[in-house]
Amino acid sequence: MRSTMMDAPLQVSRILDHGATVHGTAESVTWTGAEPHRMTYAEVGRAAARLAHGLRAECGVTGDERVATFMWNNNEHLVAYFAVPSMGAVLHTLNIRLFPDQVAYIANHAEDRVVLVDTTLIPLLARSIGAMTTVRHVVVVGGGDPAPLVEAAGDRIVVHRWDDLLAGRSDTYDWPEVNERDAAALCYTSGTTGNPKGVAYSHRSIYLHTLQVCMPEGFGLGPTDRELAIVPMFHAMSWGLPFATFLSGASLLMPDRFLQAAPIAEMIAAERPTLAGAVPTIWADLLNYLDTHEVDISSLKEVIVGGSACPPALMRAFAERYGIQVVHAWGMTEMSPLGSVSRPPAGATGEEAWRYRYTQGRIPAGVRARIVGPDGEPMSADGTSVGELEVRGPWVTARYVGEDTPDEEKFRGGWLRTGDVGMLSPDGFITLTDRAKDVIKSGGEWISSVELENALMAHPAVLEACVVGVPDERWDERPLATVVVREGASVDAEELRDFLSASVARWQLPERWAFIDAVPKTSVGKFDKKVVRSRYADGELTVRELSPQ
Amino acid sequence: MRSTMMDAPLQVSRILDHGATVHGTAESVTWTGAEPHRMTYAEVGRAAARLAHGLRAECGVTGDERVATFMWNNNEHLVAYFAVPSMGAVLHTLNIRLFPDQVAYIANHAEDRVVLVDTTLIPLLARSIGAMTTVRHVVVVGGGDPAPLVEAAGDRIVVHRWDDLLAGRSDTYDWPEVNERDAAALCYTSGTTGNPKGVAYSHRSIYLHTLQVCMPEGFGLGPTDRELAIVPMFHAMSWGLPFATFLSGASLLMPDRFLQAAPIAEMIAAERPTLAGAVPTIWADLLNYLDTHEVDISSLKEVIVGGSACPPALMRAFAERYGIQVVHAWGMTEMSPLGSVSRPPAGATGEEAWRYRYTQGRIPAGVRARIVGPDGEPMSADGTSVGELEVRGPWVTARYVGEDTPDEEKFRGGWLRTGDVGMLSPDGFITLTDRAKDVIKSGGEWISSVELENALMAHPAVLEACVVGVPDERWDERPLATVVVREGASVDAEELRDFLSASVARWQLPERWAFIDAVPKTSVGKFDKKVVRSRYADGELTVRELSPQ
Repeated sequence: MRSTMMDAPLQVSRILDHGATVHGTAESVTWTGAEPHRMTYAEVGRAAARLAHGLRAECGVTGDERVATFMWNNNEHLVAYFAVPSMGAVLHTLNIRLFPDQVAYIANHAEDRVVLVDTTLIPLLARSIGAMTTVRHVVVVGGGDPAPLVEAAGDRIVVHRWDDLLAGRSDTYDWPEVNERDAAALCYTSGTTGNPKGVAYSHRSIYLHTLQVCMPEGFGLGPTDRELAIVPMFHAMSWGLPFATFLSGASLLMPDRFLQAAPIAEMIAAERPTLAGAVPTIWADLLNYLDTHEVDISSLKEVIVGGSACPPALMRAFAERYGIQVVHAWGMTEMSPLGSVSRPPAGATGEEAWRYRYTQGRIPAGVRARIVGPDGEPMSADGTSVGELEVRGPWVTARYVGEDTPDEEKFRGGWLRTGDVGMLSPDGFITLTDRAKDVIKSGGEWISSVELENALMAHPAVLEACVVGVPDERWDERPLATVVVREGASVDAEELRDFLSASVARWQLPERWAFIDAVPKTSVGKFDKKVVRSRYADGELTVRELSPQ
Repeated sequence: MRSTMMDAPLQVSRILDHGATVHGTAESVTWTGAEPHRMTYAEVGRAAARLAHGLRAECGVTGDERVATFMWNNNEHLVAYFAVPSMGAVLHTLNIRLFPDQVAYIANHAEDRVVLVDTTLIPLLARSIGAMTTVRHVVVVGGGDPAPLVEAAGDRIVVHRWDDLLAGRSDTYDWPEVNERDAAALCYTSGTTGNPKGVAYSHRSIYLHTLQVCMPEGFGLGPTDRELAIVPMFHAMSWGLPFATFLSGASLLMPDRFLQAAPIAEMIAAERPTLAGAVPTIWADLLNYLDTHEVDISSLKEVIVGGSACPPALMRAFAERYGIQVVHAWGMTEMSPLGSVSRPPAGATGEEAWRYRYTQGRIPAGVRARIVGPDGEPMSADGTSVGELEVRGPWVTARYVGEDTPDEEKFRGGWLRTGDVGMLSPDGFITLTDRAKDVIKSGGEWISSVELENALMAHPAVLEACVVGVPDERWDERPLATVVVREGASVDAEELRDFLSASVARWQLPERWAFIDAVPKTSVGKFDKKVVRSRYADGELTVRELSPQ
């Protein structure tokens, strides 16, 4: 029996129109180091119409052509987030932190036709644009000199100014009705092994994901909120925040290129966000900064941490010293990215609530999850069986861009293999213990590198700790602990091992220790364990070996 | 460009599975007058599987057959809400308050094959089942004697017991993947004019509507909430509450047939709901009851009022005396039903916030709204232009069941004509002044009957007031005010007219006044103005006519 309901597609232009009218007085704020740049959502809506007209008229964008951004988090990036998908084209957020040849590879793979670039990023884009074979138009946001781009790409590209492109255009646009399963936006994984791989989000997946982000069990966004989106807009669609703020009427605060602790603290004090989202290192830096600077961050009630697991000590410190709840969220570029949010269930209080907060969190109705063994056999969701996590749902990718059939290494029978190892509880809480490739296989047993790191980072003298598996003649692999000591503190390997032995089984205690200046990070701020392992292999680390206990 | 996302349909079984696992410890509670009947959501999930197996095995339900309910709000009704759509059949919630011939008409029109009936409703169903030509199976919930049903329908029907039907069945069911645009549930309008008309909700529309209900800008449901659903489950899918509680993990409290103020108050004190939903008359009765009874209702933080506009005096009384926020919601059976929720925008406080709360509220992103003039011409959403409200969106019906083309009286160019007259503000707030058919046309000007009613009900001696237009030789129509005086109070027409003149233009003041014992209500608790008008026409009211001022 067919329903009698209207056939109204889920599409990005609906989020734009809703935000620009119903929430037209909410504001989008870009930090500039000086006077913040403010737009109302109504103004964002008008600018999006102008940008779409400009892209159509000057850059010839029609159909599903790809329009890339090479930008910080700012108002113009937000305008592009809405204008490009709404006009039926495909937004491609280029990751400015990748190597130039990776950026060019991605732009070519996606067949980008236009690139929007922040004036401060012209020098960086100039390093890859020469190798971008499909790009014909570059739109410069701001007043910088585009000469480096022209020098690199020659007359293959036409350079436009954002202000000129939008000037004199109509501030309304008759957004087309789209097939909700058509692509709206592209994002490539950062590709720690092999070439980056593309995920093409649909209008439908973005719309459904946006609703989930707004839900109380998601990030809980409403019109009285002000959301500080530090997570880059080129990274996994910025956790859905640009769309979710528009849908919910929350205001959106963006740091542009000012990502150090001092300007972030200054922005929080001035713009008074109620919520914020960033990777753990941003929060660790901010906490350090607050130790020595008096800053009013009392507007914040909750900060969402994702990208990698947050050390429990950091979560506790924010709660206990500043009354700010740190909420874990877990996800992947392949998942739009929201996979789970760690809110304790009803009735959990005190230490029990903390134990829930340390997990990766609970899956929403839009995500189905299961744990599978080495041969792909489903395991029990009993909270203790350890296996690889697999997921599926309407905002999970089924394959990568350009693949006719899903890559068997990443997909299995309609499920996405996350590459994460952990447990799933009967009530949907995910606890990840490691990346499948980072688990340390010691004498036939598994040691979680992440658990060792968290235990180490609970020591007051430890700023950061990264643990990797290194070859061992007797046990196949053993953990190597690399430690960054907090400024002004001092500690040695014996003391840290003793400290660990209170919470870690003796056979898991590392023998190999190295004190380093900083943990190498990937382009998105995660510990780069590949680099740590290769530094060890190349003898670049000063390693002290304790005798086994 | 096709997206790479998975093709996961939005379907009711996903809400069921999510609630029964991730929120398996949330509870569904039926008030019984004695010991409440409790089930966990995990138990509801298992019972739904058993019911589906039973309906399949004993009643031959396959494909999209219609399974009707003739039930109060209780656990078994909740089980049916999930089991029937999840197995691919269509749930049809029969309105027990309609006349028996209307109930039979609806069951025949929908071609219901099975009816689930509460034991306390057997006598009522017996009055219509004889005329139900397609029903073959009746499932009795509870231990009552089904003889009246058999007497009325003869051997055309087979009677089953709920407990027997579920006994020994598997408590898991491999719910089929459905086309998300297929019908999941049917609801008929109460049909104040002509025959009732059916709306067939799809799996997709229910899923999307459920997400909206859970949003902070909707009813804001999460796992720490306990939602008291007084709005009947046979009425407009109970405002989406049964689905929304399961999706969000909020517990669900249901009053069964105990709808009087005393048991409602007792249930609130015992079960401590945080949220509740009901029509205004329920809340008016409760407020009266609380005036003379000491009851702890402190668990309630918010009550949602829908079905008809809530008198501002009632909203104020709950806020000022009990610290409970009354939140207007507006909708229609044709809209699943949520059309708007009246939460003041960010920054509105004090009297300004109250003015927003008195409106019907703000539309969510899933609903588009416009105001049109008498010939269907779109009018400005400026907050002052008055016209008929039209809506569209993925949970709005495009036509009625059985219609090949939409009825032109109810649909226009892809929009649903709501039959409501009012204003739409630029930021999406709807203010309805009247039903199109209830507007009083006096000398070429419109008088809103609802505004007069609200002004009258702000008088301390007035319990209820219903205003209708009656024929007038000179002005075509003039308002007739019918008033129910609060117990123990006394007031006369002159005093009320003087009271009104402080807030109402002189030419709008009623000349005709009638004091009555109760305002006649429709089956869903709304003022039945058709009955008031016909009582006036038939000379059944004692009317006092003041000379015009």
